This record gives sequence, C-alpha cells and structure tokens, in this order.
Amino acid sequence: MSSKPNTPKGTRDFSSDQIVKRNYILKILVDSFKYFNYSEIQTPSFENLETLIGEYEDDQDGQMFKIISSGEKIKRADIDSLNKGELIKFSNSISDKALRYDLTVPLARYVSQNLNNINFPFKRYQTQLVWRAERPQRGRYREFLQCDVDVVGDSSYLQVVESIQLCDMVFDKLGFKNLKLRINDRRILESLSKTAGLENFVEFAIIIDKLDKIGLDEVIKLLKDKGANDDSINDIKDLFSLSESPKDKIQKVIGGFESNLFDELSSIISALSKIKLNVLEIDFDLSLARGINYYTGIVLEVSSPENSPIGSIAGGGRYDNLIQQVGKNIDLSGFGLSFGFDRIYLILEELNLFPDNINNQKTFLFLNFDNNISEQILNSMSNLRYQGIICELYPSNVKIKKQLDYANKKNFDFVILIGEEEVKNDSFILKNMSSGEQNSYKIDTLEDQIKKLI
Amino acid sequence: MSSKPNTPKGTRDFSSDQIVKRNYILKILVDSFKYFNYSEIQTPSFENLETLIGEYEDDQDGQMFKIISSGEKIKRADIDSLNKGELIKFSNSISDKALRYDLTVPLARYVSQNLNNINFPFKRYQTQLVWRAERPQRGRYREFLQCDVDVVGDSSYLQVVESIQLCDMVFDKLGFKNLKLRINDRRILESLSKTAGLENFVEFAIIIDKLDKIGLDEVIKLLKDKGANDDSINDIKDLFSLSESPKDKIQKVIGGFESNLFDELSSIISALSKIKLNVLEIDFDLSLARGINYYTGIVLEVSSPENSPIGSIAGGGRYDNLIQQVGKNIDLSGFGLSFGFDRIYLILEELNLFPDNINNQKTFLFLNFDNNISEQILNSMSNLRYQGIICELYPSNVKIKKQLDYANKKNFDFVILIGEEEVKNDSFILKNMSSGEQNSYKIDTLEDQIKKLI
Repeated sequence: MSSKPNTPKGTRDFSSDQIVKRNYILKILVDSFKYFNYSEIQTPSFENLETLIGEYEDDQDGQMFKIISSGEKIKRADIDSLNKGELIKFSNSISDKALRYDLTVPLARYVSQNLNNINFPFKRYQTQLVWRAERPQRGRYREFLQCDVDVVGDSSYLQVVESIQLCDMVFDKLGFKNLKLRINDRRILESLSKTAGLENFVEFAIIIDKLDKIGLDEVIKLLKDKGANDDSINDIKDLFSLSESPKDKIQKVIGGFESNLFDELSSIISALSKIKLNVLEIDFDLSLARGINYYTGIVLEVSSPENSPIGSIAGGGRYDNLIQQVGKNIDLSGFGLSFGFDRIYLILEELNLFPDNINNQKTFLFLNFDNNISEQILNSMSNLRYQGIICELYPSNVKIKKQLDYANKKNFDFVILIGEEEVKNDSFILKNMSSGEQNSYKIDTLEDQIKKLI
Repeated sequence: MSSKPNTPKGTRDFSSDQIVKRNYILKILVDSFKYFNYSEIQTPSFENLETLIGEYEDDQDGQMFKIISSGEKIKRADIDSLNKGELIKFSNSISDKALRYDLTVPLARYVSQNLNNINFPFKRYQTQLVWRAERPQRGRYREFLQCDVDVVGDSSYLQVVESIQLCDMVFDKLGFKNLKLRINDRRILESLSKTAGLENFVEFAIIIDKLDKIGLDEVIKLLKDKGANDDSINDIKDLFSLSESPKDKIQKVIGGFESNLFDELSSIISALSKIKLNVLEIDFDLSLARGINYYTGIVLEVSSPENSPIGSIAGGGRYDNLIQQVGKNIDLSGFGLSFGFDRIYLILEELNLFPDNINNQKTFLFLNFDNNISEQILNSMSNLRYQGIICELYPSNVKIKKQLDYANKKNFDFVILIGEEEVKNDSFILKNMSSGEQNSYKIDTLEDQIKKLI
C-alpha cells in the first residue's frame, strides 16, 4: 500500500494515555451503576435488521451501518430499487443485519428473548459501543461508547427519583459542581399539542426540542406555520417563559391542564425536595421534549456546565411501548438514562478535572547489556511481576544510550543496570530516572530493593 | 413484530453472571499484560476496506463482514460483476469498510499511522471484539473477544522468551496445570518445503498444519500429490516422528539443514531451560505451522489440557513484513501472542476452575411498604452507596410477598423492612435471606447495622 493508512471517517484510535482517562470515567459510571444494583448485560454489536428497523424505519434508517449479507444471499440484490433510486430499499435487499444504533432497542430485544429468565423489575446497565453514520463533529463520532442504565417492568415515580440520585452521584464523583437537570413529562406536551390543534405530536415535539438552538420566536413561527391556533400560541409563549422554582411553576401551569397530568411530575419534584443532591439543581422545563420517538412520559436531561458548553451530558426518559414494538406482545414499561461519555471526557479535559495521579504505578526498566546476563534476571523479574510490579526488559542488547533514551521517552520511574562490572561484583545499579540519582546494591537484594520503591 | 426476536447467527448475549466470569478471565489476562509493561491501545471496530484486504484478499475475504457504503456511494454498485457471479467484486463496489477480522492488521495500521509518536520497541496489548463470517461451532463464534499482545520494532529472541513467561503466568493464574507449548520456526519448514521440491510454501504449510487432524499418513499422501520428492518424504516421516526433548530433537534434526536456521530456536530453548515455568512444558514441534499467512519466523501454540480438548488456547509468532504490507514502507519486525478467550472460558467451566467466591459482594433490598416511607430512606441509601454498598429499593409498593419473592430470585443477601409499625417505633427489620433470621433495630442505627454486615 502506498498512501498512509487511516482510521475510517468519524472513528478514533485510543492510546494508552487516553484509555487510562476513559477508564477513569467508566469506572465511576460502572461503580455507581453497581451501587444502585443495576446488573450488566452485553449484547452483540449487530442485530438482525428486522429488530432494528421496526422502530427506526422512518427517521434513523439512513444513519445505520448495514452489513452486507454473506455468501450467496447477496444475489438477492434488488436492482430495480437501485435503478429507481430507492437506495434504502436496495440496501435492505443485500443486508440482513446492522450495527446497533443505540443500546435501548437491543435491550428491548434481550428482554423479549429472555422473558422467562428475567426477574422484573429488571435493572440493567450496559456500556458498549454504538455506531451512527452521522456527520462527525466535536464530541460526536461515528463509533462511540454508550453508557446506559434502564429499569424495565415497573413504572413507579421512585425509580425516576433514584435515577436522578444516580446522576447526582456520577457527576459528583466526576468532580462536577452545579449542574442543571431539566425534567418534563411528554404527556403534558402532548396535551399542549392537541390544544394547539396539532395532531402530529412527533412533529410538535421536534419543533419544541429546537427551543435551545433557535429561540422562542423561531419556535412560535414554526408552530404557526404548522397551523397552531392563536390562543395556544399565547399560552405557549407564557408557559415557556416561566422562571419560578419547579414546584411553583407546576402550580402556575397546572390550571390549564387536566390536573392528573402533573401527578407523576409533582411526586418526583416533591420527593427530590426531601433528599440531598450534591450537584444537581432540578428544573421543571415544559419545553424539554428530547429527540427520541419512543419516549412516552417523563423525560429528563442534564446540561453541560456553563463554563464548558457542549449540550446535554446525560438524558433519558420513560418508554411504555418499546418492548412491545421490538419484541413479544407484552406490556412492560421502561425507564432509561444514558450518559454522554465522550462529552464528559471533553469537559473533564477542558475543566482540568482529571486527577493528577490518574496513572501512578511505578515502572521499572531492566537494561540489556548482554543477553546472557539478561537471561539470568528473568526469574527475578517473574517474581516481581507475580507481586504486581510492572517491569520490562529491553529485549535487544543495543547501545545503552539508546536504551536510556527509550526509558526517558516512556517515562520509566527506575532503570536497573547490570553490566559486566556488576556481574563481577554480584551487584546491580538502580537509577531513579526523575532525580538522576543512582546507587549500587548487592544482586541478592534486587527484589527487596525494588519492592521498597512501590 | 410477530415472531420472537433473536441474536444474529453466531453471536451471543451475555448475562451478568457470564460477564462476571468473563471479567475474571479478562482481569487475569490484562493484569499480566500490564506487569510485563504492555500498554493498551484500542482501535475502531471497522477499518477501511483497503487496509484489510491488502493482506487478506486471497484467503479471508469471504469471512469479512463488510459494511454498506452510506448515502449516494451505494450507487456505484457494480451490477456487471453481480450478473457474472463475481460476488466479492460486487460487494467491494458497495462497501468501503469492514469489521476488523483480527487485531494484528489494525495494529499494523496503527503503527504506520502513528510512526512518529511511538517509542520502539512498541509493546501493546489489545482486548477487543473481532468478527468473522465463519460457520459457528463449539468455542467459535462470529463475534468474539480477542486478547493480543504484540511487540513491534525488535527481533530479539528474549522477547519470545518473555512472551512464553507471560503465557505461563496467565495460565498459572487461571489455575491450569501441565500445558504443552509447542514451538517451531517457519524458516525451517520453508527450507523443508524447498528440499521437497515444493515451491509454494503456503500450500506446504497448510498441509503440514493438518497433521493433528488427519495424521501423518494423510499428510504424506497430500505432499506426494503435490509432487514432493521421495527422499524428502522419508525425511519428513522421520522428522515428524521424533519424541526427544526439545534440545535433543534439535541436535538430531539440525544435521540436514543449514545450521544457522536453528540459531533462534536454540537460543530460546536454552534460555527457557534456565528459567522457572509453573505450567508450561516446552516442546519443539517441527510440524507446527500455524494457519496465518503473515508469520515469517518463530511460531508457537499452547494446546488445551488433555482432559478438556478443544484445540489451541493461545498462539502466536513473528511477522517481519506485515507493517510494511499494511502501511508505510518501513521495516519493522513484530512478534505477537493471542489468547483464545472463549475457549479458555469453556475449559474453566468444564474443569470447574472458576473460583467459588467470584461474585461475593453483599446485596441489600429495601422493601417498599409505602412510597412516603420509602422517600424517607433515600438519603440513607445514598450514604450507603457512597460507601460502596450495593442496595436497591423495590420501586413500587406492590404486595410484600411479591417483593420478597423478587429478593429470593435475585439472591439478595439481606432485606430491610420498614412498615407502618416500624415507623411508629422508629425501627427497621433486617432479614438475613439465607438463614431466614430477622431482627429489629432502631432506625438511627440503620447505616451502622448494614455496614457491619459487609
């Protein structure tokens, strides 16, 4: 190959330094998930196409990475559709599976498939890669790690309260301060949509969801274009401009609606007012819709800190019909929360929130003066490694300058030198690479000297 | 969807119980890799097709999962090839990337791409999924975890010795006893192939590689069919039937070859005789070829234990030209070792080698008698979780029998009951689910009582 090879568009390699930081975040997430007794599942990277396009056919199809059917199956290619420019139909004719687009549809498939072995309420977490054929941008990639918790088979408001506690723990442990969590109930928005005379709720929700980006005036304009009536436009203007506390806001808003529409939201906000949150400030935001179709009730979102704005860093909601749509005809409510791993990483980097001592295990390099001498210390190195000590032998006996250069570049903490002279004296030299200090010791104290430095 | 959804052929879901066992193995592998100072990298799940098919065009193409090009690019479909039945050419016309088939080609691409930032010798480990469109069978799946260590940019025999030490540590820590590691040098086989008058070494190696499965007589027959001369057939019969110790075997074999062909192998075997191995018994096996094309020197393989036969459980070798083939025109020798994660799992299961206490963290379920009462204990639960204690609140206040049933099925260690009576008395009941014993305590000792049980 002549040209320099690259990672595919929108994908990334990770070096060990980056992985250490990613694992730092992942451990905080996963530990927190465990303390709340979510248990882990893993699902295959691809799903059968029929599992995935059940839910996404309309809106997400173009963003899926479809896999070409193997062997003879590819002969089923629907050339007619290709010629007519019906590209999705064409690609579906030569594909029977696709990389997962999120972790929620695979969860729905998993629950349907294992219905008899699962104890409900089923609390699961999943931290796996997902793939989307989107245009890459800052904090958004074509391959990325999704970190989800979901509870399936229960619809108690307390579960939402606990999810918010979990959010609070995660962001607290990551070192965040003062984050805003906005919460809403899609059923209220649906009612608003009906009152406005807009029967297509998804269309309504998509417009509302743009409020952050395009502002209230533009939203009003779009709603008018869709035929929203004037009364409702005025209501929406008022409702979306409120700045009271969540409880007061509900009191102010509730008048215009059937009152039981606010029951769950009120219970949640009342419970939250009784418990201690370290990081999150709760805001009832009637304009919060969330982009995903399958949400049917409470939705929530945590925004990035003001000094590092990059959109939402966690979000979720209740979905009452997804399991039914993807799998067996069974009525199971779900509530899920997803953490924006890559965005969190970017913010920790930007705000300098990664701990200094994130990778502080000492490393030892044994220089190679002579292969025969090196062979003699392999047993000692093995003993050290069995005790959890990280050590490396420079494999070839090249010039010592080159080996020391390698030790410097790779930030070894200590270097062990055993040359001809040392062999004669039954000794070794231990060099501290940061101070430059070096001392000679008897060879039979090698393991003890090194263990002292850990 | 009407029919029950399933995972795609050859792929698997993992439940939390399975994941705990998988993580047990993975941790032993990764910890050992770290003690030898391999550092981790991660690469994208798919690579550009041109990166992958450079090396694999002939033999592996049919086993790759290719991804359909997004958007308009699919219009480039080569219908001519489809009509002619040239299916690989057709699929290449509508695909520009594929799921990685192993971790070695991505490593070669990574090294080429990051040549200026890498300190050589580059010791890296990588534990990521790979995908092969093979026929699934016991211990072999279409999606599986590959666990690799490689050193790039050095060709010392000591590196091979250390890799064998690493193998020994891994299998020792996993609880294996008496495993056979066979080692060979492909250059010796190449010389043998030439002497036999067979110019196509890959063909020769593929036949030799079948020895285990089809026996010596069949191998001889296949070699004769390919035109191997009679003298060499007799030599091969003798050579492949030797049962001496590795050193003696080399002494016996070496006469028929250019002697420096055995230099590296002899150095390795001599060094290994000086160091302590806990599990591995080394055998020089002239018939070991390994299936992969890119190996150019030493190859080795660890066989599964005799009481749980499933083929090789680790293997590797030296590849001198791969980086060059995949990437920039630079001469870098590599040596890699790959552990058969799924097979190791099956063997540990079969031989009962997973530790009994593999998942021994205590779990606590708080029953929900009443939502208001439950709200009151959320702060205490939060405190416990901040101290690393796993606790769960039953979210809905359904019948207590149902909640206890859930506690039983999910194997909770303890259940906490706070009903109306307990609220009146400022108390709670702590029930030990395995003994059935239950006691009442003052509510303000809740956290302390639970912490005592950890």
